[in-house]
Amino acid sequence: MSYAAPIADMRFALEACADLWRLRERYPDLDADLLSAILEGAGALAAETLAPINRSGDRAGVILGGDVVVAAQGFREAYEAFKAGGWQGLAADPAYGGQGLPRAVALAVMETVHSANMSFGLLPMLTLTAIEAIEQHGAPDQKNLYLEKLISGEWTGTMNLTEPQAGSDLGALTTKAVPQADGSYAITGQKIFITWGEHDLAPNIIHLVLARIDGAPAGSKGISMFIVPKYRDEDGSRNAVRCIGVEEKMGIHASPTCTMAYEGATGWLIGEENRGLAAMFTMMNAARLNVGMEGVAVAEAAYQKALAYARDRKQGGALIIEHPDIRRMLTTMRAKIQAGRAICYACAVAADAGDKAREDLLTPLAKAWCTDLGVEVASLGVQIHGGMGFVEEGGAALFYRDARIAPIYEGTNGIQAIDLYGRKLLSDRGDAMRALIADTRAIASAHPRLASAADALERATDHMLSAAREDALTGASAYLALAGDVAGAMLWARGLKRAPNVEQASLYNFYCESVLTRAEARVAEISIGAAALCV
Amino acid sequence: MSYAAPIADMRFALEACADLWRLRERYPDLDADLLSAILEGAGALAAETLAPINRSGDRAGVILGGDVVVAAQGFREAYEAFKAGGWQGLAADPAYGGQGLPRAVALAVMETVHSANMSFGLLPMLTLTAIEAIEQHGAPDQKNLYLEKLISGEWTGTMNLTEPQAGSDLGALTTKAVPQADGSYAITGQKIFITWGEHDLAPNIIHLVLARIDGAPAGSKGISMFIVPKYRDEDGSRNAVRCIGVEEKMGIHASPTCTMAYEGATGWLIGEENRGLAAMFTMMNAARLNVGMEGVAVAEAAYQKALAYARDRKQGGALIIEHPDIRRMLTTMRAKIQAGRAICYACAVAADAGDKAREDLLTPLAKAWCTDLGVEVASLGVQIHGGMGFVEEGGAALFYRDARIAPIYEGTNGIQAIDLYGRKLLSDRGDAMRALIADTRAIASAHPRLASAADALERATDHMLSAAREDALTGASAYLALAGDVAGAMLWARGLKRAPNVEQASLYNFYCESVLTRAEARVAEISIGAAALCV
Repeated sequence: MSYAAPIADMRFALEACADLWRLRERYPDLDADLLSAILEGAGALAAETLAPINRSGDRAGVILGGDVVVAAQGFREAYEAFKAGGWQGLAADPAYGGQGLPRAVALAVMETVHSANMSFGLLPMLTLTAIEAIEQHGAPDQKNLYLEKLISGEWTGTMNLTEPQAGSDLGALTTKAVPQADGSYAITGQKIFITWGEHDLAPNIIHLVLARIDGAPAGSKGISMFIVPKYRDEDGSRNAVRCIGVEEKMGIHASPTCTMAYEGATGWLIGEENRGLAAMFTMMNAARLNVGMEGVAVAEAAYQKALAYARDRKQGGALIIEHPDIRRMLTTMRAKIQAGRAICYACAVAADAGDKAREDLLTPLAKAWCTDLGVEVASLGVQIHGGMGFVEEGGAALFYRDARIAPIYEGTNGIQAIDLYGRKLLSDRGDAMRALIADTRAIASAHPRLASAADALERATDHMLSAAREDALTGASAYLALAGDVAGAMLWARGLKRAPNVEQASLYNFYCESVLTRAEARVAEISIGAAALCV
Repeated sequence: MSYAAPIADMRFALEACADLWRLRERYPDLDADLLSAILEGAGALAAETLAPINRSGDRAGVILGGDVVVAAQGFREAYEAFKAGGWQGLAADPAYGGQGLPRAVALAVMETVHSANMSFGLLPMLTLTAIEAIEQHGAPDQKNLYLEKLISGEWTGTMNLTEPQAGSDLGALTTKAVPQADGSYAITGQKIFITWGEHDLAPNIIHLVLARIDGAPAGSKGISMFIVPKYRDEDGSRNAVRCIGVEEKMGIHASPTCTMAYEGATGWLIGEENRGLAAMFTMMNAARLNVGMEGVAVAEAAYQKALAYARDRKQGGALIIEHPDIRRMLTTMRAKIQAGRAICYACAVAADAGDKAREDLLTPLAKAWCTDLGVEVASLGVQIHGGMGFVEEGGAALFYRDARIAPIYEGTNGIQAIDLYGRKLLSDRGDAMRALIADTRAIASAHPRLASAADALERATDHMLSAAREDALTGASAYLALAGDVAGAMLWARGLKRAPNVEQASLYNFYCESVLTRAEARVAEISIGAAALCV
């Protein structure tokens, strides 16, 4: 399965659309040459090392024997190469061996990793979230103990949130933490859906676990976060945390999804007691943006595969790429990918620039809008392959199966829509969204479709702010979709102004005429109201 | 996996929307009691016999040993029950043991079969297409030889079109037919993607095969159709047709998708020499409508599964069905299903009524619009399940995987869009479509959304008729989507007029406010033009 990092599209999105170079003062070491070298290097790793084991990993899956999980063939060597390249620590703290580069650059690197092999990409992605949690919430001795080894990739990390009885409802967690004489806690409970929760690619795994300290308040205000290493720091002995099952899933077969049993495991509080949700949100935000990137990445992989097929496959004496409907699908794929890429990169640049309001606003858009596009584009990729798309040998089915997880994990896309409404829109009475609309208007004078879409988004925003809660929640997913449609176009239009580019301009134009034209219909969907629901 | 035939929704779509009783004079034996008994009986078979082996069949798949294909456990008993119930011959010619009922009733029966077990449903569906081809194109002795055994279900049938080098392009077929002294032909070639091409559930399989007689004109005008029985009629000896491979697919695992090798197999010409495409289109039209029904059926199964999950699963102390976004998804699912069901049933009623223009117009809508909704609704079903949707144990993933084939086979949905444009719209200069628009206007006076959508469809129709071919083909899929949106609503509005129903009315209203609101955006997509494509 050949994949080549779309460096030109990536650089246009990163530099022109997401305005990477606004970070020049904050990151003086980064220049265009270094950026180029990083993207080329990551692209080479993705193409030469990760993509070749994507299909084989999908077929092989992982093997659970006792409590040991054996990764698919080739994953050990691939992880060694990833580690050796220093890719894990690209954006991490130089004090612990990181390279201190912008998260946006690290995110672009992860795009190529996810495109080449989404199952593999989840391992460094989860490690990254653990690094961010410890960097931001860890005590100095915790940083000293864990960061260097996580940043080098020697150890890997996990997030342990979900329990069998509590999916997205973290307040219902029952895993308990009992204080011990040495300052540690004994952690007992079961966690499900733990990505790369157990594996044989690293000598230690650092679990970040939400649990409830004895006597803590009920609900989400009584949750704390703990570090639970697979091997104890004190003596290197095996901790009482074990993988007791791996899920049989529709996709990402080579990524073990583990059920973890904690039976009095030694854990160390990270951050304050009962403030685990705050620490968790640090991880979640990083993870959500990365999952959004996965959506774009799997779409890119599906697009490249479909394009190659369409250029190679003859039908009726002509290549199928000559059929307008095939070209329409391919153009749709590429246009949506490019808009989604701009959203993800811009979210990361906002985070790097300390523009918290824009980062917070773009995070649910990146997560939900881009993962929905991942599914849609992967499905178009199957369609372009015809019968070969449904046959596993064809290679397109894999992307369709893999892509389907991204709208679900790290908070379903429905939860992203609630987040956009409740935590982003209501919490500042729409200020952050109005700033995005103002940015859109500022660029839209020469773009009538974009100007109309900005108007629609403004009306929709007014509606969301004034509507009864149930009515607003009924329209929240459509509102997120409209906001994503507009944000992608706004960033793209800005990019074209910064760096005029004929190819990008025509793709942008297609996007406006096929996506932004839906803005009024989105407003109707947003305004439909809870009374219209009849299930 | 529990499934219950949605008899009330089915009857509303069949009797009220599709106007089944306009067939009263043609089918005097059918009355409401018989209809009720048939639907209840089919629903019971689907729920009690077919649904219970859906998951197990998906896991087991089929086994190819030598040239023998062994069906999954339970399929033999299920097929015996299907046969014993006389379900195969519901709409077939009474002269050969059929029951002579409307195809619309048989289609509704097939809906329940496909919902319960899409892999299973493909077997009687393919037999049905063979029956229709022989009924319409077979010589009297061919009818005598095959029809009774196909109609009883004792033997099954297949369609052999695709070859490795020629997917949708039938003109490129190379399978050859050499005339023999006894009037038969020796058929040699390879066919791929042959559904239920080989299996162990029936003592004989009747293959309908497209091939080229020695010396026939090149291209699609040199193709003839042949009957190739697995066991020869003359002496019961094994014919030289063998299954040499089964595909490993993303879904419909229990339905064998076979590569068939013909090595001088005895075949008998059906219909005229070089007129194979006409006979093939008879089969294709029946198959396309049935595939559209599959889309609705798998969507219904996904909907029922998701509804049950949402009513059972607690999150944050409440059932997830109480969340507006979950209810929005469920309402969307049910509304689209009901519109799609009306389109499929109305297409069958048009066929039964001899309304060829309407049947021809609705066939590509049924095939493409309803299979796209199958994928979309199955994906929503996964989403409602959250993490359990991605885990195979949850049961929702199966529908998402199975649904994905329907937009591909029996002519991809892109081909349906070309068919709608070329063979339906251009061939009568839009008369059939204008009749559908007139029907819509006639019912739309009290339905402003529907009236606007009819206007949009008319403008789009004018555009399609006047646009350059490449531009029209660029917009053809969006045009089909708009036509389906409108046709579904028109049929539904008619049904509500014939049989007022509060529940259906509120679902219809949701459909208008969430689907028909997109009509203007569809017109923009339809009009985008080939120059906007940039891949």
